[in-house]
Amino acid sequence: MTSDITESEKTLPWDDDALHEECGVFGVTGVAEAANFVALGLHALQHRGQEAGGIVSHDPEHGFNSARRFGYVRDHFTKASLMETLPGPLAIGHVRYSTSGSKGNTQLRDVQPFFGEFSLGGAAIAHNGNITNAEALRRELIDAGSIFQSSSDSECIIHLMARSLQRKVPDRMMDALRRVEGAFSIVAMTRTKLIGVRDPLGVRPLVLGRISEGVYALSSETCALDIIGAEFVREVEPGEMVVVENGELQSHRPFRQERPRFCIFEHVYFSRPDSILGGRSVYETRRQIGVELAREAPAEADLVCPVPDSGTPAAIGFSQESGIPYAMGIIRNQYMGRTFIEPTEQIRNMGVRLKLNVNRALIRGKRVILVDDSVVRGTTSRKIKEMILDAGAAEVHFRIASPPTAWPCFYGVDTPNRDKLLAASMTEEEMRAHLQVDSLRFITLNGLYRAVGEADGRDATCPQYCDACFSGDYPVTPTDQIEKGFALKAAE
Amino acid sequence: MTSDITESEKTLPWDDDALHEECGVFGVTGVAEAANFVALGLHALQHRGQEAGGIVSHDPEHGFNSARRFGYVRDHFTKASLMETLPGPLAIGHVRYSTSGSKGNTQLRDVQPFFGEFSLGGAAIAHNGNITNAEALRRELIDAGSIFQSSSDSECIIHLMARSLQRKVPDRMMDALRRVEGAFSIVAMTRTKLIGVRDPLGVRPLVLGRISEGVYALSSETCALDIIGAEFVREVEPGEMVVVENGELQSHRPFRQERPRFCIFEHVYFSRPDSILGGRSVYETRRQIGVELAREAPAEADLVCPVPDSGTPAAIGFSQESGIPYAMGIIRNQYMGRTFIEPTEQIRNMGVRLKLNVNRALIRGKRVILVDDSVVRGTTSRKIKEMILDAGAAEVHFRIASPPTAWPCFYGVDTPNRDKLLAASMTEEEMRAHLQVDSLRFITLNGLYRAVGEADGRDATCPQYCDACFSGDYPVTPTDQIEKGFALKAAE
Amino acid sequence: MTSDITESEKTLPWDDDALHEECGVFGVTGVAEAANFVALGLHALQHRGQEAGGIVSHDPEHGFNSARRFGYVRDHFTKASLMETLPGPLAIGHVRYSTSGSKGNTQLRDVQPFFGEFSLGGAAIAHNGNITNAEALRRELIDAGSIFQSSSDSECIIHLMARSLQRKVPDRMMDALRRVEGAFSIVAMTRTKLIGVRDPLGVRPLVLGRISEGVYALSSETCALDIIGAEFVREVEPGEMVVVENGELQSHRPFRQERPRFCIFEHVYFSRPDSILGGRSVYETRRQIGVELAREAPAEADLVCPVPDSGTPAAIGFSQESGIPYAMGIIRNQYMGRTFIEPTEQIRNMGVRLKLNVNRALIRGKRVILVDDSVVRGTTSRKIKEMILDAGAAEVHFRIASPPTAWPCFYGVDTPNRDKLLAASMTEEEMRAHLQVDSLRFITLNGLYRAVGEADGRDATCPQYCDACFSGDYPVTPTDQIEKGFALKAAE
Amino acid sequence: MTSDITESEKTLPWDDDALHEECGVFGVTGVAEAANFVALGLHALQHRGQEAGGIVSHDPEHGFNSARRFGYVRDHFTKASLMETLPGPLAIGHVRYSTSGSKGNTQLRDVQPFFGEFSLGGAAIAHNGNITNAEALRRELIDAGSIFQSSSDSECIIHLMARSLQRKVPDRMMDALRRVEGAFSIVAMTRTKLIGVRDPLGVRPLVLGRISEGVYALSSETCALDIIGAEFVREVEPGEMVVVENGELQSHRPFRQERPRFCIFEHVYFSRPDSILGGRSVYETRRQIGVELAREAPAEADLVCPVPDSGTPAAIGFSQESGIPYAMGIIRNQYMGRTFIEPTEQIRNMGVRLKLNVNRALIRGKRVILVDDSVVRGTTSRKIKEMILDAGAAEVHFRIASPPTAWPCFYGVDTPNRDKLLAASMTEEEMRAHLQVDSLRFITLNGLYRAVGEADGRDATCPQYCDACFSGDYPVTPTDQIEKGFALKAAE
Repeated sequence: MTSDITESEKTLPWDDDALHEECGVFGVTGVAEAANFVALGLHALQHRGQEAGGIVSHDPEHGFNSARRFGYVRDHFTKASLMETLPGPLAIGHVRYSTSGSKGNTQLRDVQPFFGEFSLGGAAIAHNGNITNAEALRRELIDAGSIFQSSSDSECIIHLMARSLQRKVPDRMMDALRRVEGAFSIVAMTRTKLIGVRDPLGVRPLVLGRISEGVYALSSETCALDIIGAEFVREVEPGEMVVVENGELQSHRPFRQERPRFCIFEHVYFSRPDSILGGRSVYETRRQIGVELAREAPAEADLVCPVPDSGTPAAIGFSQESGIPYAMGIIRNQYMGRTFIEPTEQIRNMGVRLKLNVNRALIRGKRVILVDDSVVRGTTSRKIKEMILDAGAAEVHFRIASPPTAWPCFYGVDTPNRDKLLAASMTEEEMRAHLQVDSLRFITLNGLYRAVGEADGRDATCPQYCDACFSGDYPVTPTDQIEKGFALKAAE
Repeated sequence: MTSDITESEKTLPWDDDALHEECGVFGVTGVAEAANFVALGLHALQHRGQEAGGIVSHDPEHGFNSARRFGYVRDHFTKASLMETLPGPLAIGHVRYSTSGSKGNTQLRDVQPFFGEFSLGGAAIAHNGNITNAEALRRELIDAGSIFQSSSDSECIIHLMARSLQRKVPDRMMDALRRVEGAFSIVAMTRTKLIGVRDPLGVRPLVLGRISEGVYALSSETCALDIIGAEFVREVEPGEMVVVENGELQSHRPFRQERPRFCIFEHVYFSRPDSILGGRSVYETRRQIGVELAREAPAEADLVCPVPDSGTPAAIGFSQESGIPYAMGIIRNQYMGRTFIEPTEQIRNMGVRLKLNVNRALIRGKRVILVDDSVVRGTTSRKIKEMILDAGAAEVHFRIASPPTAWPCFYGVDTPNRDKLLAASMTEEEMRAHLQVDSLRFITLNGLYRAVGEADGRDATCPQYCDACFSGDYPVTPTDQIEKGFALKAAE
Repeated sequence: MTSDITESEKTLPWDDDALHEECGVFGVTGVAEAANFVALGLHALQHRGQEAGGIVSHDPEHGFNSARRFGYVRDHFTKASLMETLPGPLAIGHVRYSTSGSKGNTQLRDVQPFFGEFSLGGAAIAHNGNITNAEALRRELIDAGSIFQSSSDSECIIHLMARSLQRKVPDRMMDALRRVEGAFSIVAMTRTKLIGVRDPLGVRPLVLGRISEGVYALSSETCALDIIGAEFVREVEPGEMVVVENGELQSHRPFRQERPRFCIFEHVYFSRPDSILGGRSVYETRRQIGVELAREAPAEADLVCPVPDSGTPAAIGFSQESGIPYAMGIIRNQYMGRTFIEPTEQIRNMGVRLKLNVNRALIRGKRVILVDDSVVRGTTSRKIKEMILDAGAAEVHFRIASPPTAWPCFYGVDTPNRDKLLAASMTEEEMRAHLQVDSLRFITLNGLYRAVGEADGRDATCPQYCDACFSGDYPVTPTDQIEKGFALKAAE
Repeated sequence: MTSDITESEKTLPWDDDALHEECGVFGVTGVAEAANFVALGLHALQHRGQEAGGIVSHDPEHGFNSARRFGYVRDHFTKASLMETLPGPLAIGHVRYSTSGSKGNTQLRDVQPFFGEFSLGGAAIAHNGNITNAEALRRELIDAGSIFQSSSDSECIIHLMARSLQRKVPDRMMDALRRVEGAFSIVAMTRTKLIGVRDPLGVRPLVLGRISEGVYALSSETCALDIIGAEFVREVEPGEMVVVENGELQSHRPFRQERPRFCIFEHVYFSRPDSILGGRSVYETRRQIGVELAREAPAEADLVCPVPDSGTPAAIGFSQESGIPYAMGIIRNQYMGRTFIEPTEQIRNMGVRLKLNVNRALIRGKRVILVDDSVVRGTTSRKIKEMILDAGAAEVHFRIASPPTAWPCFYGVDTPNRDKLLAASMTEEEMRAHLQVDSLRFITLNGLYRAVGEADGRDATCPQYCDACFSGDYPVTPTDQIEKGFALKAAE
């Protein structure tokens, strides 16, 4: 495999007990210095991927221009010296956490957007999601003589496009995407066109914004439209391809129509609270999850405290519904980064204490409800419990704003193997005992569906969302994973 | 002046409409790899200074070892390769925002701790505060042949120590500090001693912690004791010098006793909410400020929203007292840094939008109370108001968790010149009109004193705190500033 | 074209009035830490390319490992931290000046070795030379759906290999190289094989060395065998492919046999004087050129001075043959690098003075013969003449150790366009007048052939060497160049 | 000592078997962008110190500006971005190898020029040489309360100046230098004056150049005047202080007059061959050393080969006098740097092979005379002998262009301790046996004096040069060294 050719930097994530969105994408056309807009958009999408970022622009004089960097957008793509190398009115960009195949060992050539030169023109693409038949496609393409440069599943798309017999890039892309299984929200560009596509199920988000008449932007989330002052027009629909050229927006439907199944975890955790998903405020949905949780799983306590920052809206909702005062019992260090370069042993062992500290004077002697977004491996929850008890709390009650995460995601979220997921092998009560807390309750799947606006809860025969991480019900068969031995949930 | 010899890097703070604590200090003795503890302590104190940091350690083999770096503690002082150069059981450290004299143009040699070699031994010192007669002392020392290497006011102390006729370092330090006017909390070290001192008024904080029997730490705040698992013993008292040697703690009183006047703004803004100041939880004090504010200045509204993150505890208190729901109407981008290196024009102009975004779906049509910690120049408040109105808010009411900041601080806080302070030339109503909001109210000085636990409010004849930034009542004459033309408040 | 996607660093070569070899290649198999040997070999070949270098190694645990860096070998490939990432007993490497297509704007992805994963295994290749039909091949491959990642002509080879229907890598390589026109000396590797190939004319050098029984190395020049203590076995022959696997050396002859035409300029300038080419000491050949030159073009003078360092051996020979004392009239600054990053205007204008200085006390009043290796644009010769006259020389006589360079090289040497070559449009006398020197003489083509050991000079009907840069007689049709408008020499 | 406070980078010199000049100094006044001239001058003086460099300039708007960098001048002081920070018409600079006290562990604060602010103005100084009573002065100054920032002996001067009761900087400098013992050539500046001083013996060189009327430069060597196009006016005389202000040159004689004793090793090795010392071409002197050596110590041989590059002129002279052909038997790799950062074990062990390679085809079967500049530890000579014999030489005869180096230099040259000097404990014949060569001969002290123009050789009662490294006759008592236990040569 190409993936065994490596140019790594040794960095260590400070904490791997969390789920991570793998990517954010952004594109804009019709503005001077488009790359500056893309940089701002990517900065607003930084929560979707902090490892690296890239921007490709096109201008008539230099053609396609590209820059990729490890680290935060603001550390590189704000500098005049770099942005001057990215001129032109059309640009796309990407932020990434890591790709399938090379976790923790990413190389700059794995950083998107990817660029390909075709017989009648070139194209760059930025992909959010995951291709579930990427390995099969990769083998097929290698057999046919394609040379892969990265370990990214997304590179398949550009090779399939290169081999398409179609002449126009959008047509090549449709050809390619019909071969691809999985979840994808793509922003792509040719010399003159800005293109957005979502897979038929619409698992990952992608929205369309308008800066001014005929000037469009595409973004993973609406919060990135806000930062550039763009108006939110609508979501790119599941299965839709939009093409913007010369200020004209065209819509195509290259795929067979299916019932959409948007990722419900985007509501719970991945998206920013100031984004709008499916017409709903993400913040308000999360607050409502807290409300549902307070109804489903009340507790007698003195304080409701969020595990910062992701548990905050649900904690507010829980407090409001339960009447128990909301308080900042755990304080987050704002100056904590995502990785360490060759840390000392002592620093490595600090783990969550580097990021979180208990507000000791507040907690002492109190019965505390802690609201967190999810439990993955359980290691963080356990450390937080210890910190809270060390500080003298009388009781600790965990309330989790999502159902138990018992199945890995194969659609663009970085989850541990199933055997590392606490909920894969334990019941709620077993987890409570394992974490040694006074109580532990997760929101039910139906409660979560209610919180996102489905008054009747989950439609078991035809679920409204992708909730595979909770239910094991995978809307797209994870072909590569099954080949590697992953066992689907037994039919009940 | 030495300060005209410069080796700058061109960086721009993204926003200068805030007050900034200038420093945090930390020291530990009696542990293996003391510098690792100091690094953790400084990481926990990073909110007190983000520009640069330094650590000095001592070990018998190499003597004094030093490392200073621009940027965050976690980016440098977590790496094994650097920490290996700082061996030994005794270490002190410093984080800084900037010093008097070279704002925005700091050089590595201005970064503390400072080291001096004396006739019978050497010492390193780290200083939080500001020396108000530093320029006079500097002139005097230069006339006598001392060579200054930095533009920092703190360097005077080490030169005064070098010229002391005392033989022991603590005695030299007492000699030196008796010549110094202003505010100082100092952590210092010799080859065998860890030393902490606070000025007679105790303007800046300094606390003593114990890791185990005979193993002590000194820190600006208690939150940094928590991260290393140290127990909070007590504050170093105003006017006290503590010396730890061979596990023995000694206390000295080198200064004439005065009534303490701790900085009240540490409660409002500078200290971390999980620290304990004067026996009180900082978080709880801030929440109480919100309660007082809701009593003093109620408003009819649909939502109480903090300006994140500093306004959050007061907003919680305001909501609890007023019964108006608390909500996250403004979302903070966690990936915003403190500075830009040569940014593009467009990025520079984004200002606060790079950091904050309005939760549009939540705010639309609502009457919103915004709770912020302070108003300095008013530029940020104005932009926030615009963002809130753009998002469709029906009314905007500002509630400020501190009295009007009408006077600069000369005791270790970076404040603009008086003519830049909005409150220096405007009444509350004029500021409201200037900001074009529906209402604007500051907590009263007495309300603030009540919130910090003074039930009877401020003792006008003998104030319990330093509140010069609000009152213009300077407990130490700012000699250097007066010489440069600063006019004290006219006697009433 | 892919080449219009750029990630440049702005650097400026300090002087472009010279010919530059484009590459050096090295490989070794059968030793522990093979990459360390390759690093040493590349260091010894640094004169063949200073812009960038790369090493690929293979070890059973990690598979293929790769590192590429801009700058000198010694600045990167000597560090333990980097070399640890290149484990294994088999490694190849490459140093480069620049490739066709992206001069002065090289990107890391243009740096070799290139790696490709094929259906039954992968391979890495490092190429010295130039493919004269690369653009046609590239178009063909792109039409068929291959995606190019670099602007290098060498990448064609790996794509042709990927598309070969052969199963074994050496067979794939033979397939590919039969499609390729031009000059190439290639070192390649699979997981288990070290491979060396030279084009049928053997334009570029490639030698085989033996470290111990069954432990082989391949190198552009013998000087790199010396540094690792390897014995020089023989040259890889023109048109030969050698394959080393498990200590066994096999030889293949994949091409139709042709009369070899080795690059005569390797003798004059490119190769290191301590290398052996075609059984002859390069140093001795150059000294002999000086002898021939002294016979063909004597001059009355006081001193013979080399233009350092390349003119030195010929100047020694000239002195010995003529009896005129040899002297170091021009001193070279050893601390001059190859490029500047954004230099000041003044520095940029210094040109050759940054590198060379006249030994004024020696030169004053003297008649000086300057011996240089070649005249390209003539700009350096002119500056040197001015420096010599400024220093008070009485007469300046230029003697050039190569015939007039009147034609560009298309076989792996970086030459300016023909209209920039002084000798393309001027006779010897016109050049003398242009340079304003007392005399200017080039060695004749026959004299040069004699110096390399052809006692009867050049065989006009069937020349023994490639001397296209002097004669315009191109042994391989430069297809791409002709398509772009290059006019071959008219038949006489 | 201050020197025990360290901020090191781990680098290793690739070879420590050589003597190293410790510094070069340069200054200019009266030109626009003076720092650019200084950068060029320092580039030409880079052979005098490769570890680090610094420039201080002064302009009316910003005052004094400073930049110091590790590494070569051309890598830093050619960039527009750095040079823009050094505006003004007056500048001085310094390149250094390392200072006494912190060899191999230099810190940026040890890099000159040093700057001091005095009561009536400031000054910067750059020093070449060594102060032999620095430690005594340092103790005295520390006792009086001066704080040292570096481990450099040169810092004493600036502290002595700061404490002078004189008002003008040149007068302060005279005061200071009268306290100083040892060797010094100093270039200094105030806001308006450029100052040059040489110690009474004139051990280190310093020359005066003129760019145009009233526009002066000071430089360690004349080769650096050449690069900026300045005319060589004269040497600053031993014991002279020159002051240039407003285009006027003044000369002072602050010291008691003594018979000069210039360093004879500057002729042999340190100075560049294109410099003029004491009215003589350095190149010509070295060639003459070869002539003397051929007369004193002839040998029957086939070739005379220099050990590059320092042995080259003497080898030419030896060849010319003996009639034995001169040849480049050893080839130097031009791409070898001075240091390694954390090299692999294998690279570290390569030693001299990384830099030198034998021209095997030339040497095989030949009787070879190798001419080298000096023998220090003998380790390099031994490796070269081995390389030559490995290549098949029949005989190896070493001829050394200096007398045996038996004593360390305390006047600004980095020499090993005496016990590491081969000649300190061995006779010529013992050294020959130790090196296992066929013959080994050093030039005699009288021969060397003849070569530098003293027809009658050395005046034993009153030597014309400082030749302490050969004779043990120290013209200035090395006070600090004696205190540390160094034993002077016993009186005979």
